[in-house]
Amino acid sequence: MIATKAYAAKAASAPLAPFQLERQDVGPNDIQIEIQYCGVCHSDIHQVRDEWGGSKFPMVPGHEIVGKIIKVGDAVTKFKVGETAGIGCFVDSCRHCPSCLAGEEQYCDFGMVGTYNSRYKDGTPTYGGYSDQIVVDENYALHISDKLPLEGVAPLLCAGITTYSPLMTWKIGKGHKIAVVGLGGLGHMAVKFGVALGAEVTVLSTSASKKEDALKLGAHHFVVTKNEDEVKEVANTFDFILNTISAQHEYDFYLQMLKLDGTMVLVGIPPEAPQVSAFNLIGKRRRLAGSMIGGIKETQEMLDYCAENGIVSDVEVINIDYINEAYERMLKNDVRYRFVIDMSSLK
Amino acid sequence: MIATKAYAAKAASAPLAPFQLERQDVGPNDIQIEIQYCGVCHSDIHQVRDEWGGSKFPMVPGHEIVGKIIKVGDAVTKFKVGETAGIGCFVDSCRHCPSCLAGEEQYCDFGMVGTYNSRYKDGTPTYGGYSDQIVVDENYALHISDKLPLEGVAPLLCAGITTYSPLMTWKIGKGHKIAVVGLGGLGHMAVKFGVALGAEVTVLSTSASKKEDALKLGAHHFVVTKNEDEVKEVANTFDFILNTISAQHEYDFYLQMLKLDGTMVLVGIPPEAPQVSAFNLIGKRRRLAGSMIGGIKETQEMLDYCAENGIVSDVEVINIDYINEAYERMLKNDVRYRFVIDMSSLK
Repeated sequence: MIATKAYAAKAASAPLAPFQLERQDVGPNDIQIEIQYCGVCHSDIHQVRDEWGGSKFPMVPGHEIVGKIIKVGDAVTKFKVGETAGIGCFVDSCRHCPSCLAGEEQYCDFGMVGTYNSRYKDGTPTYGGYSDQIVVDENYALHISDKLPLEGVAPLLCAGITTYSPLMTWKIGKGHKIAVVGLGGLGHMAVKFGVALGAEVTVLSTSASKKEDALKLGAHHFVVTKNEDEVKEVANTFDFILNTISAQHEYDFYLQMLKLDGTMVLVGIPPEAPQVSAFNLIGKRRRLAGSMIGGIKETQEMLDYCAENGIVSDVEVINIDYINEAYERMLKNDVRYRFVIDMSSLK
Repeated sequence: MIATKAYAAKAASAPLAPFQLERQDVGPNDIQIEIQYCGVCHSDIHQVRDEWGGSKFPMVPGHEIVGKIIKVGDAVTKFKVGETAGIGCFVDSCRHCPSCLAGEEQYCDFGMVGTYNSRYKDGTPTYGGYSDQIVVDENYALHISDKLPLEGVAPLLCAGITTYSPLMTWKIGKGHKIAVVGLGGLGHMAVKFGVALGAEVTVLSTSASKKEDALKLGAHHFVVTKNEDEVKEVANTFDFILNTISAQHEYDFYLQMLKLDGTMVLVGIPPEAPQVSAFNLIGKRRRLAGSMIGGIKETQEMLDYCAENGIVSDVEVINIDYINEAYERMLKNDVRYRFVIDMSSLK
C-alpha cells in the first residue's frame, strides 16, 4: 500500500482537513502519478456537502488531476515513467457493455467507477485528486502534452471535456450560431471551444458585468438575459445552445431562442426539474438534450486539440489549505474561472 | 363567390350545426375540390371549444380533407379536373422564409395559414373541411392515389403526416427499437408506419385491453405501463419513442426507457408543461424533441408511400349530423381509430 497525503471531509457538515490514506499498490496495468495540480469542480462541493445524496465519508474530492508518472506496472504499454498524465471523472468501468466498447465509458451500463465518492469493483472506496499520489489503470489515464501550462490543463479533465463533447456530438463548427448559457468554469471553456471550432458564439448571461470578459474570451456577442429587447432579438436564431447552469432556471426561456431543428444541451443539473412546454419544442422541431463529460478516447482527442490550439482553462492557483475558502467564493461565483490546487502545497 | 354548405360552431359553448358560407372564387392558381371525406382530429375539439385560446367563430373545423377536383384555375399545372386531391392542416404560408423555401411550410417564420380557425393573407377567415366545397392554391394541395379507400386516406393528411414526419426526420428503420406511446388516431398510424419501415415496434399503454389491437396493427410488443415489472424490463432499451399523448403525463417516465442517444419526440401537447429531469437526459445523452405535422413535399411522399404499401387509417365513417356525438366518444377514447365524415351526408 502507498501512504498518501490528502485533504478530506469527514462528514457532510465538516470542512476539508488534512487526511492520510493508503493507495492500492501498482498492479501490472497500473500507473502511479505524483499529483501536481487538481482542479476544483462545483460538483466537488455538491458531493462533499451530500447535496445529491449517498455521499461516502471520509471523502477526498478532486477529478481534474494532472501529474508526473513515477511508476508503471509490468504490463503497461501506453505510459512511461517521467511522462505527464491526467485523470478525469472516472477510473474504471465494466469494459464490456456497448458504451464501454464504444469508448463511451461515462455511459457504462453498470455505472462508471467515479474518481472519488465511488467504489472500485472490489468494494474499496475511491479517493480523488486532493492528494499527492494516485494509482490508476493505464486505460483510464490520459496523455498530457508539455506544450501547455499544466495548471491550466487540469480543468480540461472535467470542465473541458464536458463542454467539448457535446460540441463534437452535435458537430458544431463554421456556419453555426451557438449560445453559451452561464459564464463559469464550464461556460468559459465552451466559449473557447466554440470560437476555436469556427462557430459564431453568443454568451447569454444575467449579468452585464460579464460582457467584457466574454468578449475577451473570444465570444462574438453578448446578451443580457434580463434585457427584454435583447432577448427578443435572439428569438429563433441559434442552431445550438450549451446550457451550463446548475442553478434553478427555466428551460423554455432559452428553448425559444433556438431556430428550426436547433438543440439545447444541458450539462448542469438544477435542484428541481424545470418544466418544458411541448409547444416550444413542437413549434420549431427543437430538441432538448443532455450530455455527461466524455469517454477516454474523446478526452484524449480534446487534450490533443487543446495542445494544438493553445487552449487551457483560465485559473486561479491556490494552496490546498485555502480550499474551504475557495468553496465559499465559488458559491458566490467569485472565481475566473476555475480554482486549481497546487499540490506541492500539500505537506 | 361559391356557396358552400358546412357545419360550424357559433361559439366555444355551442354544438356544431348546419352553416352556410361563401368560398372565394377559383383564382388562376387555385383548384376547387368537392369534398368527399373529412377526418375528425382531436385538435378540432380543442379549437372548437377554445381550449387553446384565440379561437375564431363561427368555426368550420376539419383539416383531413379529400375529394374530387371540379375546377382548376387558368395557371394551374399540377392538377386536373376529375383527379382526387387532399388538403391537410394549412392552405398557405409566406413562401419566402427559409422554412417555406425548404418545403417545411409548417414551420413558416410568419406562421402558416391554418385550414380553419386562421386568416388568409387578405384577412378573411379560413373555414375547414366539414363542408362540401373548398378552394385552395394548387401548391398547398396533395395528389391522392386511387389505389386506396378514400375514407381511410383522409386521416393521413394530419394523423398520418404527424407520425410519418418524425420517423423520417430521425431516420427510423431496420435495426431500430421504437416505442409508440398512446394508441389513438396518431398512435395507430405510428405503429403502421414503424412496422412498414422495418423497426421493432413496442406499444406502451396504460390499458392492457389494447394489447390485442396493437398486435393486430403489427406491433411486435406491448407493455402495460401500469405494470412495474414490464416497465423495468424496457428501461434503457428504445432508440426512439413517439409520444402521441395529449393528456397530462410525465415525460421522465418514458425518457428513462431510452437507450444511449435515444430520442423521444412529442406530437401531443399536455395542458400543463411537464417537468423534465436533467439527470434523465444527461445520464444517457438522451434527447426530447417535438415535431409538427409535415411540409407539402413530405406529405406527398407520405401519401405515395401509403399507396405503395397499402397503408390507410382505421376509420369509423359517420354522417355529419353525428359529429357532436362523435366528439363525446372521442373524449372517452371510444373510437378505433379515427372518425371520418362522409360528406355526401351534408345535404
